Amino acid sequence: MATTTDFDTIAAISTPPGEGGIAIVRISGDEAFEVISKIFKGKDLKKVPSHTINYGHIIDPDNGSDVDEVMVSVMKAPKTYTKEDVIEINCHGGIIATNKILQLVLSYGARMAEPGEFTKRAFLNGRIDLSQSEAVMDLIEAKTDRSMKAALNQLDGNLSSLIRKLRQDILDVLANVEVNIDYPEYDDAEVVTTKLLSNKAKELKVRIQKLLDTSKQGRVLRDGLATSIVGRPNVGKSSLLNHLLHQDKAIVTDVPGTTRDVLEEYVNVRGVPLKLVDTAGIRETDDKVEKIGVDRSRKAIQSSDLVLLVLNASEHLTDEDKELIKLTQDTKKIIILNKTDLDQKLTTDEIKQIVGSDESIITTSAIKDDGTEKLEELIAHLFFNEGIESSQNDVMVTNARHISLLHQAKDALSSVLDGIDSGMPVDLVQMDMRRCWDLLGEITGDSYNGELLDQLFSQFCLGK
Amino acid sequence: MATTTDFDTIAAISTPPGEGGIAIVRISGDEAFEVISKIFKGKDLKKVPSHTINYGHIIDPDNGSDVDEVMVSVMKAPKTYTKEDVIEINCHGGIIATNKILQLVLSYGARMAEPGEFTKRAFLNGRIDLSQSEAVMDLIEAKTDRSMKAALNQLDGNLSSLIRKLRQDILDVLANVEVNIDYPEYDDAEVVTTKLLSNKAKELKVRIQKLLDTSKQGRVLRDGLATSIVGRPNVGKSSLLNHLLHQDKAIVTDVPGTTRDVLEEYVNVRGVPLKLVDTAGIRETDDKVEKIGVDRSRKAIQSSDLVLLVLNASEHLTDEDKELIKLTQDTKKIIILNKTDLDQKLTTDEIKQIVGSDESIITTSAIKDDGTEKLEELIAHLFFNEGIESSQNDVMVTNARHISLLHQAKDALSSVLDGIDSGMPVDLVQMDMRRCWDLLGEITGDSYNGELLDQLFSQFCLGK
Repeated sequence: MATTTDFDTIAAISTPPGEGGIAIVRISGDEAFEVISKIFKGKDLKKVPSHTINYGHIIDPDNGSDVDEVMVSVMKAPKTYTKEDVIEINCHGGIIATNKILQLVLSYGARMAEPGEFTKRAFLNGRIDLSQSEAVMDLIEAKTDRSMKAALNQLDGNLSSLIRKLRQDILDVLANVEVNIDYPEYDDAEVVTTKLLSNKAKELKVRIQKLLDTSKQGRVLRDGLATSIVGRPNVGKSSLLNHLLHQDKAIVTDVPGTTRDVLEEYVNVRGVPLKLVDTAGIRETDDKVEKIGVDRSRKAIQSSDLVLLVLNASEHLTDEDKELIKLTQDTKKIIILNKTDLDQKLTTDEIKQIVGSDESIITTSAIKDDGTEKLEELIAHLFFNEGIESSQNDVMVTNARHISLLHQAKDALSSVLDGIDSGMPVDLVQMDMRRCWDLLGEITGDSYNGELLDQLFSQFCLGK
Repeated sequence: MATTTDFDTIAAISTPPGEGGIAIVRISGDEAFEVISKIFKGKDLKKVPSHTINYGHIIDPDNGSDVDEVMVSVMKAPKTYTKEDVIEINCHGGIIATNKILQLVLSYGARMAEPGEFTKRAFLNGRIDLSQSEAVMDLIEAKTDRSMKAALNQLDGNLSSLIRKLRQDILDVLANVEVNIDYPEYDDAEVVTTKLLSNKAKELKVRIQKLLDTSKQGRVLRDGLATSIVGRPNVGKSSLLNHLLHQDKAIVTDVPGTTRDVLEEYVNVRGVPLKLVDTAGIRETDDKVEKIGVDRSRKAIQSSDLVLLVLNASEHLTDEDKELIKLTQDTKKIIILNKTDLDQKLTTDEIKQIVGSDESIITTSAIKDDGTEKLEELIAHLFFNEGIESSQNDVMVTNARHISLLHQAKDALSSVLDGIDSGMPVDLVQMDMRRCWDLLGEITGDSYNGELLDQLFSQFCLGK
């Protein structure tokens, strides 16, 4: 399966950048022991047993000077992350010392690893498949416990094994079809084959659809639910935001590849990662007269999966409120009647009449922290109403690439059925079946191309 | 040496925060094996040899669910970082999974470590002394190769051994004095003792002064040289800044404990870490008419160890230029005559006459990147003119605490000499000698108090 090139020895800093207690420079490949032996003063690492930790110093062979006091982890192939020889230099941390060690490693025979290249090796060397590789990254980027579990489940190979079963079934059918095509002397061969193909295609479609049914929750778990808070000035948006953000539930991450000013904010609401849209807009205007106009709200609403529309229960609906309700009419939303601590002039019933009774409407008093519990329950209910607790050990499709491939695979099965209906010859129909098999193989990486790999692993972080 | 309390089992995340390829949860203490055995699925870690790496899973004992796939490093006391049993859980990284593992570790018997507490244990358990502990942090925060080497040198105990020699000599003298005080029957006892004390105090003062002589360079290496770039609008400050910042020489760090907006910028100029002052002021005004007024310049100059004063060589000196020259008259500075690519109206000689011939004056053309090499040489020369290359394996005092203690120790020796001169009794004079011994002991931690330790280690990063 592995390509024959690109198996030189690679190295990278595998801990996050920054000042910390421990930093790790990881080396993987045939030359790993050669490289470390040139710059390590201590035991002869080629002679120590595998999976041991060894004290010593990294030295600069140019002048014999010490670079750092280190612990070196020695892991011999094949029981390693990459299935290759792996050396991990645990050093004192710090930017300069860690970089200096990396530079020495690179000077003495290793090449700088590309992002995700260690995991790519694990894949190319057959330790894990492609969906498991992707799970490694999902695990790192997980925003809530539940997202983490979904990733871990995928890393354990549960999605892969389901996909492999589908592929095996397709292969069995194709083998059968092959036989029938090769021995057409039996009168009913064509009929039997067609029937078999048709039944199998229908059955497989159902199984793929079941996987796709999990993908909506799955994607939310993986990527977060884009959520915006909209409402007129002074209805309590920023109090609501603050309530959502408190209790260490907020995770703020830099968006890789952009300037450090672009941050993504996530809130963990009972396992649902809400990815907050345009909180800057809400914060900026916190104390002054808020300036979020309808235009800015429209943009926020357009890029949201969920809108929290805040209304002031102590006032009658204004034209602006009505405008916002109209803007959100096609969006999943929760309408929040805030300021219930004051005299109520706006009732849940009134809103129900305007938006239709199926909408989620709750009353809160953000200032008294009353109703935020209810809001959290409602958010969790909206997205896990089919009971994720019971299904958390089941397979869930979380990855856009997988979802797209499953859709294509399902379409291929539809083509099989259409072909049979329109009386196409079996050998043409089976090509669609074969295509379905290929597409599913791209999920696990049983079929893949270099371009896909490059594209996929380049999204990984460096050192993984 | 160790205090008798506070040796419970501690844990923390020892890698920098953020998404990376590997994160480490470190546990240290008597209960480390108890804790890990409750949450680890794999080999029985109590039975594996010390200094081995073991594959397995962290599980949540509450519900038996997997939390992460991990490699666990097992290091048994006493050959560990803290001299206690140490367990390091190497996990896939990522904020959620790593925190979840830490939470489990804390639930099953460990206490959250304070900043620097692992290193504090290493000190309290006698593996390293106080100046070595401080070197650990300096190593992590080092800004250039040279700062790193100075820290490593200190970590290797070279400063400590010098200090210990000083203390041993003091102890020898004190023992001698003691004998002479106890046996005053010899006629010349008083004279001999006084002579001994006086000679020794003079000698020790010289040795301490030699250490203090290294501290100026030492402090620059450790903390950076506060440097500002001042000059009139449009003389080329921002081009100069950009030249200094290019070639990956810049390190930007967050200032701990402040908002993320407060950044410190360092440039590595031939091993001298320049800590840039008020670059925001220069950048903000990059393209428009620059707005750095004299007031802002005055502030920048006041907080700088080195000023780079930029003048426009294609124009005559203006009043503002003269004002800036006046403001910097007591500051170490380099005057840069920029824009030599244009017709020169301002000469090096003219400037020399104004500021005095000892000042460093260079000509550059920032736009042609001409002269920046020269500038870098000059900066390095200004601060390492006594040849740091040859002395880089010698002891260098870098730490403000050490410098202050050395000054106090020197003062104590002066008191010894003053006492002798004014005919104070020997048993009073020797108390100052004894104080000198104590003060030096605070550098190595041979004498210390709990408050000092708390204050000192609280500056460490978490997990170290």
